[in-house]
Amino acid sequence: MSASPDDPARYNSFLADLLGVMAYGELSAFERLSSDARYSPTLHDRAVLGRMAVVEFQHYELVRSRLEAMGLDTEAAMLPFQPSVDHFHERTRPADWYESLMKAYVIDTVSADVYRAVARYVDAGTRELIEQIQSAETSTAVLRDRLKAALADDPRLASRLALWARRLLGEALTQAQRVGIEHALLGGLSGLDDDAAKDMASGLAAELAANHARRMAGLGLAA
Amino acid sequence: MSASPDDPARYNSFLADLLGVMAYGELSAFERLSSDARYSPTLHDRAVLGRMAVVEFQHYELVRSRLEAMGLDTEAAMLPFQPSVDHFHERTRPADWYESLMKAYVIDTVSADVYRAVARYVDAGTRELIEQIQSAETSTAVLRDRLKAALADDPRLASRLALWARRLLGEALTQAQRVGIEHALLGGLSGLDDDAAKDMASGLAAELAANHARRMAGLGLAA
Repeated sequence: MSASPDDPARYNSFLADLLGVMAYGELSAFERLSSDARYSPTLHDRAVLGRMAVVEFQHYELVRSRLEAMGLDTEAAMLPFQPSVDHFHERTRPADWYESLMKAYVIDTVSADVYRAVARYVDAGTRELIEQIQSAETSTAVLRDRLKAALADDPRLASRLALWARRLLGEALTQAQRVGIEHALLGGLSGLDDDAAKDMASGLAAELAANHARRMAGLGLAA
Repeated sequence: MSASPDDPARYNSFLADLLGVMAYGELSAFERLSSDARYSPTLHDRAVLGRMAVVEFQHYELVRSRLEAMGLDTEAAMLPFQPSVDHFHERTRPADWYESLMKAYVIDTVSADVYRAVARYVDAGTRELIEQIQSAETSTAVLRDRLKAALADDPRLASRLALWARRLLGEALTQAQRVGIEHALLGGLSGLDDDAAKDMASGLAAELAANHARRMAGLGLAA
């Protein structure tokens, strides 16, 4: 399946879009995580979220370098995706630290799934970049452990966080679909016609939802 | 002047306080800068502030490592300084991006001055740490150039930013004095009795104000 693009112009425009949405997603995640960090219950927790935010920024820098190496302007590549990503964050403002933690966990794990899926269809250099920025297992594990501990301390959190996680996934899928449709992102993948791209998109959504459900069950939450 | 501490217990408690206030200052600066970044006029500017925020977090990590190497708990070392630092930030919430930029510039340059002054009185290992985290000249230069460009674009900004910078310096000195008095920070320096510590503190305040005035003049602002 590793695509060596047979329509270079179309593939390059797909790549600019893919890297643009990744760059803006990472930059926004950095800002949101580090702002949310201030509401952590302890200084230790603030540093934990801060450290994750810094990793997001480093990912942004990796994607930016790649865009620049392709002779593309990072700002121009990100701009088309600003409305959807901002809209996602506006609609999912955490009410407290636990919701921030869950948001970080959902974004982390769902992005990793998306990246993994997309990596199958891109050139080797891009795949390598995606693997580099795929969420580090350790930071995901820290979030999961912190959520488990919080749920053990206060079982009343469970229903609120289960509902919140469901909303996060819903908003993420809605925005991903909007971005995909507006920018015909998947259609730019080599070897996929429009129908194949649509099939892949709905297959991906189902896969993301199933993985999410499995992870929520792992936390003892109803997905 | 390089002090090899002759009262180790007193010196160590001074050092824990010094590193504690530095750690919390860096962690807070990271959070505030990265939250403020979202209000930048362009995505390019957002990334510039974000990059500075990341540097602050890396400084926090350096100080934390040092505290841990000394067998001290970072959270316990930071806690006494949380009220003063938070109070400073509460009283200096930027109203827009230009005020954020000026706040970053003032914090950057004034901290560098304070670190430079304190470095004269500490052991070699601590001095090395302080030199490592002293604000990188390049990031200060970026802020200065960005402020100059903003002032050239909109000369009406000058009086507002001059007033704002004066307030920032005033609040910073007030909090620094409070921290210094409450924790008898300077008194912990080897070879300084209480009167010498007070003299040093007022000498330092005068020096900080003079340097600040010179930098504001460099921006074409009245200090």
